[in-house]
Amino acid sequence: MTRFASLDALRSACLDLPGGHAEAAAKVAAREATLTKPPKSLGRLEQAVEWLALWQGKSPPRLGAIEILVFAGNHGVTAQGVSAYPAEVTAQMVANFAHGGAAINQLAQISGAELRVIALDLDHPTADFTVEPAMGDAAFLEAVSAGYEALSPEADLVVLGEMGIGNTTAASAVAAALFGGGGARFAGHGTGIDDQGVKRKREAIDAALARHQAILGDPLRIAAALGGRELAAILGATLAARHLRIPALLDGFVCTAAVAPLARLRADALDHTLAGHMSAESGHRLLLQELGLHPLLDLGMRLGEASGAAVAVLILRAALACHTGMATFAEAHVSGKDA
Amino acid sequence: MTRFASLDALRSACLDLPGGHAEAAAKVAAREATLTKPPKSLGRLEQAVEWLALWQGKSPPRLGAIEILVFAGNHGVTAQGVSAYPAEVTAQMVANFAHGGAAINQLAQISGAELRVIALDLDHPTADFTVEPAMGDAAFLEAVSAGYEALSPEADLVVLGEMGIGNTTAASAVAAALFGGGGARFAGHGTGIDDQGVKRKREAIDAALARHQAILGDPLRIAAALGGRELAAILGATLAARHLRIPALLDGFVCTAAVAPLARLRADALDHTLAGHMSAESGHRLLLQELGLHPLLDLGMRLGEASGAAVAVLILRAALACHTGMATFAEAHVSGKDA
Repeated sequence: MTRFASLDALRSACLDLPGGHAEAAAKVAAREATLTKPPKSLGRLEQAVEWLALWQGKSPPRLGAIEILVFAGNHGVTAQGVSAYPAEVTAQMVANFAHGGAAINQLAQISGAELRVIALDLDHPTADFTVEPAMGDAAFLEAVSAGYEALSPEADLVVLGEMGIGNTTAASAVAAALFGGGGARFAGHGTGIDDQGVKRKREAIDAALARHQAILGDPLRIAAALGGRELAAILGATLAARHLRIPALLDGFVCTAAVAPLARLRADALDHTLAGHMSAESGHRLLLQELGLHPLLDLGMRLGEASGAAVAVLILRAALACHTGMATFAEAHVSGKDA
Repeated sequence: MTRFASLDALRSACLDLPGGHAEAAAKVAAREATLTKPPKSLGRLEQAVEWLALWQGKSPPRLGAIEILVFAGNHGVTAQGVSAYPAEVTAQMVANFAHGGAAINQLAQISGAELRVIALDLDHPTADFTVEPAMGDAAFLEAVSAGYEALSPEADLVVLGEMGIGNTTAASAVAAALFGGGGARFAGHGTGIDDQGVKRKREAIDAALARHQAILGDPLRIAAALGGRELAAILGATLAARHLRIPALLDGFVCTAAVAPLARLRADALDHTLAGHMSAESGHRLLLQELGLHPLLDLGMRLGEASGAAVAVLILRAALACHTGMATFAEAHVSGKDA
């Protein structure tokens, strides 16, 4: 039994979204105005605390239970020679996550977050989408449901990421299908493929867009036909976070492409998310612009695994520490502006 | 007795600078290439670890003893109505630092750094530089020496910041004197002054540039005539860090303006520094461009107090955690690129 029995049931869930808790956000803003600093001089730190409060409904918000969910999947499109690494690296990296050896293990530890890795049927890659849809409805809904169910309802913040050899090709295909421009617009060097590889990527995407032309008006069918299991799971987890009013931090290009169908279904669907990091993968900037998202960080990372978003957790911790720990002008006997 | 008995002695010290430890940086780069991630996919995190190693001469580098030095000074130019806050706020904020109520107290704690605040003769503001030099040679050298002596030789990293009502006017004047463009180019809203106030700021800077025209070819005389005690101390601490080969994180606009004279004396003088954060204060972007510095963060902060740089410490900690904690491809049995 999956959570979503049909595409129509999932579509309804994507359209039926709660708003935030405006009172909690207003309470945070009111306190910020009393703290010993010029108004708004902590910039995005102040905005981030308001955003946490808006979705948690708590003032001050909490960052006690932070959950990093990394979904892993394999991709049939690797048959087209689109990645610099062999497909078995997905499973090898999942083992590396389990043994604590990957970047995300170190970043989860330093950001005080719990890391959970969910491998999605790695022995059965999605179909090569240049030939047929990556997933049929059942496989797609199963992956979306796995992501939806993975989120702990008691999390204060969820951080989303992925691992999957070949998945920047899937992400580029989804982005091109949703926003236009073809393979040339979003396909980049991924994990480090050469120019010939990028050319193969673009051709694979253009072939897929031509083959699946009939479904390009439907964001969920795009996610099924051109995405992958880990992308579908991220979509599901992000939808669950919205229904549970849990703020969500997005990682890089693949993660953003995974949730983009939600924004195409409903313009405010990503209001409970914050982009953690602008990937060095060339398509990410374009995709963020299409979605109106402004990432917290731009550190030239392009690793995935939720690594950029996990670094962004540190920024949220700094923001919350200022909000809760600072003295007010009255407490500190500091003269106010234009006093 | 000050460390530097004359401007010429200081000038000699500014020109006599050691380079980094290339072997330690190379060792870091060699290890990075073996870790379980595509080459260079951690972007600036990898570069930051190399930079730490280059100046510490240690591979892996350490972030055990991090020292945040915040220098405070008062400014005679406040008589020109250039700040949104009264001058007594400088001393009030120093008291707030002592009681743990400011943003930098919270950020020092969360970044695991030791905060030291050095108030520089707050009862005797510098002279109004629209009328006479802010500091004579003796006062300037005393402040530079105070900064130079403040740095602990055993620090792994020093983080530099300031507090001083009126000091964005001083910083704008120094920047305009060094790089041209007059008051209009670098003066912004500071702690939140209105448009009339910005106009007064620009006029004060242009008056000062006209009055001190004779010394505008000499970066150190510019720092004395148009700067302030806390800016001079930051210059001194940055120079000490270079002589001791300790990496230094710079904060925002005022901090960057404070060290800019060093770069005018010797083009590579700031190689041991990293800009922590791009301030929302409008002149900072221009100044960073003039100096060829690329800040780690751009979070819309404009508070000073070393606050932006203290947040950047978190990025360095994340970078070092990845470098020291990740498994190699061989250890994790992960297939390499194009395997």
